[in-house]
Amino acid sequence: MSIVYARRTAKFNAAHRLHNPAMSDEWNLATFGKCNNPHWHGHNYTLEIVVAGEPNPETGFVVDLAELKQIIEERIVSKCDHRNLNTQVDFLAGKMTSTENFAIGIWHQLVDHIPSGKLHCVRLHETDNNMVEYFGD
Amino acid sequence: MSIVYARRTAKFNAAHRLHNPAMSDEWNLATFGKCNNPHWHGHNYTLEIVVAGEPNPETGFVVDLAELKQIIEERIVSKCDHRNLNTQVDFLAGKMTSTENFAIGIWHQLVDHIPSGKLHCVRLHETDNNMVEYFGD
Amino acid sequence: MSIVYARRTAKFNAAHRLHNPAMSDEWNLATFGKCNNPHWHGHNYTLEIVVAGEPNPETGFVVDLAELKQIIEERIVSKCDHRNLNTQVDFLAGKMTSTENFAIGIWHQLVDHIPSGKLHCVRLHETDNNMVEYFGD
Amino acid sequence: MSIVYARRTAKFNAAHRLHNPAMSDEWNLATFGKCNNPHWHGHNYTLEIVVAGEPNPETGFVVDLAELKQIIEERIVSKCDHRNLNTQVDFLAGKMTSTENFAIGIWHQLVDHIPSGKLHCVRLHETDNNMVEYFGD
Amino acid sequence: MSIVYARRTAKFNAAHRLHNPAMSDEWNLATFGKCNNPHWHGHNYTLEIVVAGEPNPETGFVVDLAELKQIIEERIVSKCDHRNLNTQVDFLAGKMTSTENFAIGIWHQLVDHIPSGKLHCVRLHETDNNMVEYFGD
Amino acid sequence: MSIVYARRTAKFNAAHRLHNPAMSDEWNLATFGKCNNPHWHGHNYTLEIVVAGEPNPETGFVVDLAELKQIIEERIVSKCDHRNLNTQVDFLAGKMTSTENFAIGIWHQLVDHIPSGKLHCVRLHETDNNMVEYFGD
Repeated sequence: MSIVYARRTAKFNAAHRLHNPAMSDEWNLATFGKCNNPHWHGHNYTLEIVVAGEPNPETGFVVDLAELKQIIEERIVSKCDHRNLNTQVDFLAGKMTSTENFAIGIWHQLVDHIPSGKLHCVRLHETDNNMVEYFGD
Repeated sequence: MSIVYARRTAKFNAAHRLHNPAMSDEWNLATFGKCNNPHWHGHNYTLEIVVAGEPNPETGFVVDLAELKQIIEERIVSKCDHRNLNTQVDFLAGKMTSTENFAIGIWHQLVDHIPSGKLHCVRLHETDNNMVEYFGD
Repeated sequence: MSIVYARRTAKFNAAHRLHNPAMSDEWNLATFGKCNNPHWHGHNYTLEIVVAGEPNPETGFVVDLAELKQIIEERIVSKCDHRNLNTQVDFLAGKMTSTENFAIGIWHQLVDHIPSGKLHCVRLHETDNNMVEYFGD
Repeated sequence: MSIVYARRTAKFNAAHRLHNPAMSDEWNLATFGKCNNPHWHGHNYTLEIVVAGEPNPETGFVVDLAELKQIIEERIVSKCDHRNLNTQVDFLAGKMTSTENFAIGIWHQLVDHIPSGKLHCVRLHETDNNMVEYFGD
Repeated sequence: MSIVYARRTAKFNAAHRLHNPAMSDEWNLATFGKCNNPHWHGHNYTLEIVVAGEPNPETGFVVDLAELKQIIEERIVSKCDHRNLNTQVDFLAGKMTSTENFAIGIWHQLVDHIPSGKLHCVRLHETDNNMVEYFGD
Repeated sequence: MSIVYARRTAKFNAAHRLHNPAMSDEWNLATFGKCNNPHWHGHNYTLEIVVAGEPNPETGFVVDLAELKQIIEERIVSKCDHRNLNTQVDFLAGKMTSTENFAIGIWHQLVDHIPSGKLHCVRLHETDNNMVEYFGD
């Protein structure tokens, strides 16, 4: 059996802030610093979706990356691009919009919608220096 | 005479939106599309500052890039990083926060503060695909 | 007057070969080496289009980059992507498909179709190491 | 025991097309779209080879990357660079030239020729957005 | 349980050479080639530190990347940046300064100083082509 | 007349330090800081060479980039790669090894050896953030 991991990349940008409403303003400022700015800030996010499986003998594909691109577009990019993660993205409602939680949210948006193979990893870059990976529970 | 062009790069991120308050909401939405989102969006900006001059014979430098880095930090990054360009950046007050206007604003912030040589170019990347350059009037 | 240079990037891939039909096979092989392979080879091209002009006071834009993206898509990418540059691209018919000639061809495809401002530069990357720029005649 | 993973990168370009000769032209066009273009298209491929092992106490190396570079050159790059993957690469003969199958083919070209340590992963980028990884059976 | 892997990147540059003092000059030159140059050479290193753990429900963080940045600065960058790895870096004293050994050394510098979560991987790029990963014993 | 600018990129690494022997140690340390480290430091340099000219009608080339690559290899890379810029590079003898002076030195090494077209620009990256350009006198 020859498992191959295929990755598709997408880019989008969004506004957000880190703020825990259960805590005081002092705690939030001390914990999150400038990421707590009430006027928001934002990022160009780079998202990598990795799908694992055996290549289909008829196509040579683990997953049709054009089809995967369309699903990422519909379920992630169209909901997040040029949006406010804290106030406008349904699958992040009520959550801290850390890169960690954002990656977990993206996993759950996609895991049951992969056309072939299995979702293996969500990799999400917030900046060139800060990146997270999530492989599911 | 040997003019050399020396470039220093800096990175920061910010929220903004494109909105012309002199025009109707309909015009703004039709003109700016998702960039007009009233909940804001944001970017990781990459800024390149180019200074032109003859290398100093004692140092070999057109400009001390460590010193230039400090000036970019004080006059640009500390004012823009993790901020809202529309509401929190003094040198953009009352202006459309297009990448074009942002680059012109950065030029005027820096042009009289270059320690040696002359400011030659402000290059500002809003995304990997969108970039502007300004060389002064 | 404040001239700003705005750049939009696009990517596509294509097959090609370097071959001058007016010359002998020996000359072609000696001149172009492996780029002359009759079975073709190919590249991921990165195209940068630079437009110069004064920002429009109503929008802050030299040119609407979303509109420019659409024009690059229609006049260049849709004609070249996943195509054979030697046999399938009308604006290169009868020309050597060097990166130089390809950039000149792209210039003429776009120069009369820029929605605002003026076409300033076509920058075309054939590989990470090989790139050409054309600024018009 | 201290296992370290050492990676060497190589680049080359090639023409190819996706086409399953056992299926009808209609099926091929519907399945592969523009990747099925009978006039070919092509890519700049980036290949990463990862070797795992304990550093040799005399050299500090898992594998001499200069030696590994030479083996990648001989067994992969010299056979694929500026070639047509469908018609000119012996180790892909009779296979769909998907990135998945290409990575598996590269694995088998290299697995018995690693000078020290063990081949751990073949990572192959077809474009900036599309990449696959193969770790063996 | 939702383990997330968070990565922080840092950059620095240093001089070094590969030389095993227990062996003859001839062996060293034959083994390390130009990397054995007694006048030294150097690199811009890119370091990636990956920390694994469950996001803290109060912050959404596996680890506060600003805090991690500070620790990488204190324990690695301030000791290595603009230094000679062979003669000036305490945690490499008496070791071959291969990228492999350097990564292992960085692991031991950091493993007991991660503020939350656990050190998962040290990834160290010596050049664009040469990179190593270490995951501990 | 259609002038096209063609660029070839090369990479190498080297050790150096900034030190003006005509000045005191105090002046050198105050001026150059950690770049003055007497134990050296080093960089991965990226060099871009731009040649301007009209494409040759027989080849479509401004300059044969394979030939230009060979000249850059012989006249620059083979003299600088894995070397000490202060003590081992003839064309920098007696000069401060700032990136500015290095670029000027590279210009003079190449200007009379361009096979067709004219040398237009030497662009030299010392780090991702620091870069210089030289266009001749």
